Amino acid sequence: MKLAVSGKGGVGKTTFAALLIRTLNDRGKHVLAIDADPDANLAAALGIPNADKITPIAEMKDLIFERTEARPGSIGGFFKLNPRVDDLPEALSAKLDNIKLMRLGGVQKGGSGCICPESTLLRALVTHIVLARDEVVVMDMEAGIEHLGRATASAVDKLIVVVEPGRRSIDTAEHIHKLASEIGLKTIAVVGNKIRSKKDEEFLKKHLNDFEFLGFIPYDDALIEADLDGVSPFDIDSAAKTYVSEMISILNFS
Amino acid sequence: MKLAVSGKGGVGKTTFAALLIRTLNDRGKHVLAIDADPDANLAAALGIPNADKITPIAEMKDLIFERTEARPGSIGGFFKLNPRVDDLPEALSAKLDNIKLMRLGGVQKGGSGCICPESTLLRALVTHIVLARDEVVVMDMEAGIEHLGRATASAVDKLIVVVEPGRRSIDTAEHIHKLASEIGLKTIAVVGNKIRSKKDEEFLKKHLNDFEFLGFIPYDDALIEADLDGVSPFDIDSAAKTYVSEMISILNFS
Repeated sequence: MKLAVSGKGGVGKTTFAALLIRTLNDRGKHVLAIDADPDANLAAALGIPNADKITPIAEMKDLIFERTEARPGSIGGFFKLNPRVDDLPEALSAKLDNIKLMRLGGVQKGGSGCICPESTLLRALVTHIVLARDEVVVMDMEAGIEHLGRATASAVDKLIVVVEPGRRSIDTAEHIHKLASEIGLKTIAVVGNKIRSKKDEEFLKKHLNDFEFLGFIPYDDALIEADLDGVSPFDIDSAAKTYVSEMISILNFS
Repeated sequence: MKLAVSGKGGVGKTTFAALLIRTLNDRGKHVLAIDADPDANLAAALGIPNADKITPIAEMKDLIFERTEARPGSIGGFFKLNPRVDDLPEALSAKLDNIKLMRLGGVQKGGSGCICPESTLLRALVTHIVLARDEVVVMDMEAGIEHLGRATASAVDKLIVVVEPGRRSIDTAEHIHKLASEIGLKTIAVVGNKIRSKKDEEFLKKHLNDFEFLGFIPYDDALIEADLDGVSPFDIDSAAKTYVSEMISILNFS
């Protein structure tokens, strides 16, 4: 089972991914968790100690040079388009129980021009993870599906887009839908988060009527407090856990 | 006066920028509003009609070719690094009262490789806007300062980072602080948004004690409702307006 989680920044995507992964782990699954959003911290949300100390793959300059034969930051020139990556999930992941976590990191855009060796390595890694691993894989992605392509689209069992009651989160969901269709990824579902009332639920259903809804998660101050206290949302008492657990039943894990 | 607004996705950065711009407009200022966050919609938050119909500059392929002499999406090759841009703010902005809005759009990253003509044009445009315009300029940026560089840093009067009570928004603020220091941009201030209690305020002050605080804005369901109803936060009754107005006094506009 390969799951990708996406959505606009701030909708609770990483909180949802962490609850999903911890619940699966609780049920005895081995999960490979991929943090592919440079603006999130899945490791911290999972409750992995010293989450901030994990070096993202994109910042491992020696590894990138070793595998692609090109220096990060170099523009043009030649480098390997199919670097070896199959050993990386074992070698470079942080562990918690039966969860292995990899942090991909971001490709610096700023003033440094077009950086390609890093993105080539990340893309090869994601392709390997989606196509060749037999663990349950959960990927926490940016507001997009940057690392996925035609080759990997058919192997993703479900792309879950998290939305909140807010127009931009809906726009982002539609944008992700479009990007997904372009690469042939058709199994998309939506999770409504931060639901304050039936009205919020209806608003999302009305504006996203072309999507399958996996479920809704109520707004809960306790989730904000958990974040402020540096505690995993799975390790507190919140109704969100029950709702995510029900969604996993719908997803029908073998 | 040149202001840049940044912060993690979902913290209310665009709502804040819209309140800032509309308040300045209300006081008789001419404001050039720059939407530099592909994941936001500043035009809609300002209350500009048909905001979704505004084509971002990055998607104007003919313009990009005309100015840079390179086709968008092309990799390598040569193109003008200093395209003409000084006519664009007049020619390509949407108007509301004395506000001129430009939407920059995003540079597609996905599978399309390294795209440089677009980002070159955007960067030249931002440099022009920051260095050569005499209106008040407010830029709504992504969780970073991508379009700014050493040349423009000293002309930015204040980089305002919006944060909410949440660990990742603090991490993002620290990250932006670091990027800003690297290019010599030193005039940073923080605005705390979605404040539910004195405890939230203390949390932010404690974790961002190396920042100047411009002020705090209380959590307000009315702002969510305004967004759901497609109404500018400036056109509803919310305490946020008063708080933003006070911050403008601190910023000391001439």
